[in-house]
Amino acid sequence: MKCNESVRSQVPLVHCITNYVTVNDVANALLACGGSPIMADDIGEVADITSISNALVLNIGTLNARTVASMVKAGQTANEKGIPVVLDPVGAGASALRNETTRELVEKVRFAIIRGNLSEMSFIAGLEVSTRGVDSSEADSGNDPVAVAKAVASAHGCIAAITGAEDVVTDGQRVAKIQNGVPQMGKITGTGCMLSGVVGAYVGACQDRFQAVVAAVASMGIAGEMSLDKEGHKGTGSLHIGIIDALSQIDDDTIEKRGKIQYEA
Amino acid sequence: MKCNESVRSQVPLVHCITNYVTVNDVANALLACGGSPIMADDIGEVADITSISNALVLNIGTLNARTVASMVKAGQTANEKGIPVVLDPVGAGASALRNETTRELVEKVRFAIIRGNLSEMSFIAGLEVSTRGVDSSEADSGNDPVAVAKAVASAHGCIAAITGAEDVVTDGQRVAKIQNGVPQMGKITGTGCMLSGVVGAYVGACQDRFQAVVAAVASMGIAGEMSLDKEGHKGTGSLHIGIIDALSQIDDDTIEKRGKIQYEA
Amino acid sequence: MKCNESVRSQVPLVHCITNYVTVNDVANALLACGGSPIMADDIGEVADITSISNALVLNIGTLNARTVASMVKAGQTANEKGIPVVLDPVGAGASALRNETTRELVEKVRFAIIRGNLSEMSFIAGLEVSTRGVDSSEADSGNDPVAVAKAVASAHGCIAAITGAEDVVTDGQRVAKIQNGVPQMGKITGTGCMLSGVVGAYVGACQDRFQAVVAAVASMGIAGEMSLDKEGHKGTGSLHIGIIDALSQIDDDTIEKRGKIQYEA
Repeated sequence: MKCNESVRSQVPLVHCITNYVTVNDVANALLACGGSPIMADDIGEVADITSISNALVLNIGTLNARTVASMVKAGQTANEKGIPVVLDPVGAGASALRNETTRELVEKVRFAIIRGNLSEMSFIAGLEVSTRGVDSSEADSGNDPVAVAKAVASAHGCIAAITGAEDVVTDGQRVAKIQNGVPQMGKITGTGCMLSGVVGAYVGACQDRFQAVVAAVASMGIAGEMSLDKEGHKGTGSLHIGIIDALSQIDDDTIEKRGKIQYEA
Repeated sequence: MKCNESVRSQVPLVHCITNYVTVNDVANALLACGGSPIMADDIGEVADITSISNALVLNIGTLNARTVASMVKAGQTANEKGIPVVLDPVGAGASALRNETTRELVEKVRFAIIRGNLSEMSFIAGLEVSTRGVDSSEADSGNDPVAVAKAVASAHGCIAAITGAEDVVTDGQRVAKIQNGVPQMGKITGTGCMLSGVVGAYVGACQDRFQAVVAAVASMGIAGEMSLDKEGHKGTGSLHIGIIDALSQIDDDTIEKRGKIQYEA
Repeated sequence: MKCNESVRSQVPLVHCITNYVTVNDVANALLACGGSPIMADDIGEVADITSISNALVLNIGTLNARTVASMVKAGQTANEKGIPVVLDPVGAGASALRNETTRELVEKVRFAIIRGNLSEMSFIAGLEVSTRGVDSSEADSGNDPVAVAKAVASAHGCIAAITGAEDVVTDGQRVAKIQNGVPQMGKITGTGCMLSGVVGAYVGACQDRFQAVVAAVASMGIAGEMSLDKEGHKGTGSLHIGIIDALSQIDDDTIEKRGKIQYEA
């Protein structure tokens, strides 16, 4: 698998409708891994922008009425054109609006990939959740990530990725567990959002979407490890910048050598 | 006082309705000091989000009609539930809209803390001001910070914090003057916004709100000093990242040892 | 020419209506070079804010109906008051909305400076373009930057700046070509946006606008070179921070010594 090589040679254009908290990091992470980001959320242009893109990423981190309508339109345009769509259901479970929006999006748009933490994915799987803000809730930690991911993948015909201490990626059949990453990443906002952007680049450039998501997820964990080694001991500001540095230097070799990926039937 | 320990052990959820210029830094500063940020500004969810939070921070840096209505609703929800609300009146005095919005907010919402620069706080105290943009104006530098802070604290039954070369915190009775910080911090956008976020974390986790605000204000100044020592000589980009680094490493010991805090009757 | 000295001594207030992707970098770049940024986009306050500013920067990177109306109002206010206005037509050519907005802005507002990449500027010059997202398109690389810049300058009575491997600045008569910069800057989002902000500061403080734009463009390229030397080998995250560091340290001497500027008739 030469996923990263594909990203760096094809430079997929990734249309992101994403939150304003981490949007700069998402753009820089996308550029670092070899993609090309374009952020556009006005309903008057999202169809145009999606149409020239290789992937679309929808992230509800700071959703509002105006941008949710744009997400639906962009998502439906992508579906018509066969462009893969990634959903990052930030904070699903934390408010009625996020719950309704998540339901509306999965009903109206066909997602190629849904990526979230265990609480968010548990909500999508139809389980009772007690999300606390945008972080995964302790109370939901009893849910089995593999079962939850498989439920989401089956219900929505997509690849499901749950990120946490151990990441799980599944297409409903194949399951990969990924052990990369460092706990300090939880002290930086946006590692999940950045990963969703990077996933967009990988699926925008690679044929095998399951392998593309596995590689993208591993690359983000490895980036955290590399950053902590080099810069992160200084504190979370340096860890943050070091993650972008690492993403700009990770290639398929790095992923192969450092990836702690285990496949299950 | 073990304010920072309380923040790090309780991990208060801090709901921020804040400007899009510095929102990423506010989130990372909140995480660095031990809190957990959630940014949400749609009127359809702010009551839900505030209700699960330990503090609410309202910052008018890039206010608009949509988010001002959300600020009022979130603030009133916080008041009903006894959740402390922090106001950062960015640029009050600089436009009629900011003036009217500031007046509307202090009229409709009961603030636990109001934090701003001398121009902004002079405006809230009802003095004539000549704010120049978002920085404190030379022309207002004749106003006495202690008198202005006491006026704000008395008029609004809150803790007032004025940050500048010397910071002043008062609950109307007790006064603390804090001498930490470095002038180079004025060359980075968002140190004030970050501080307001950090204040939200501290008052969300500590019983004694006056001491919590004093500790938060001192911690930001100390972070500037630590960053300038370690990284900041490289320039303002490194100073910026070094401040987040320092916030992630400051604990109550650091504040006690490095804090230049003087109490007055 | 002591453009940077003028910026650092006058600290021009620069009103930016800009995209939410790179807004933090624009503010920090403006502060680093000696200016003072203020971001405000509500139609209820843009006239007030522009009126107290020394320059106005309009950037359509994440345009929407609400902010386009604010851009027109701010631009017309600036025209009435004789305040220079900078246009950064991000992604012009990439969607019908961006095209229409760009046309509306140049029709309703008189710009002192228009700065973009070759695709964006070719669109404004009325050429057929095939912009791909927010980056300049290969397909447009056959256009002659000097001819395109001269066409824009003549048609709109402005200074036109096209940035790329070689930058071109012209007032329609005088032409400067600038060879500073490093290709790695293309892997960071926002170097163009930051430059437009810096241009705002330079034209807000310097009499000779042509020389001011030349100095601003050179300073951004030099910042990229300085950053790559010192920090950028670590990766694109460090390159990004190093650019802000360098902008905070560049003065007229640096520009004179390191600037690779060539004037043509």
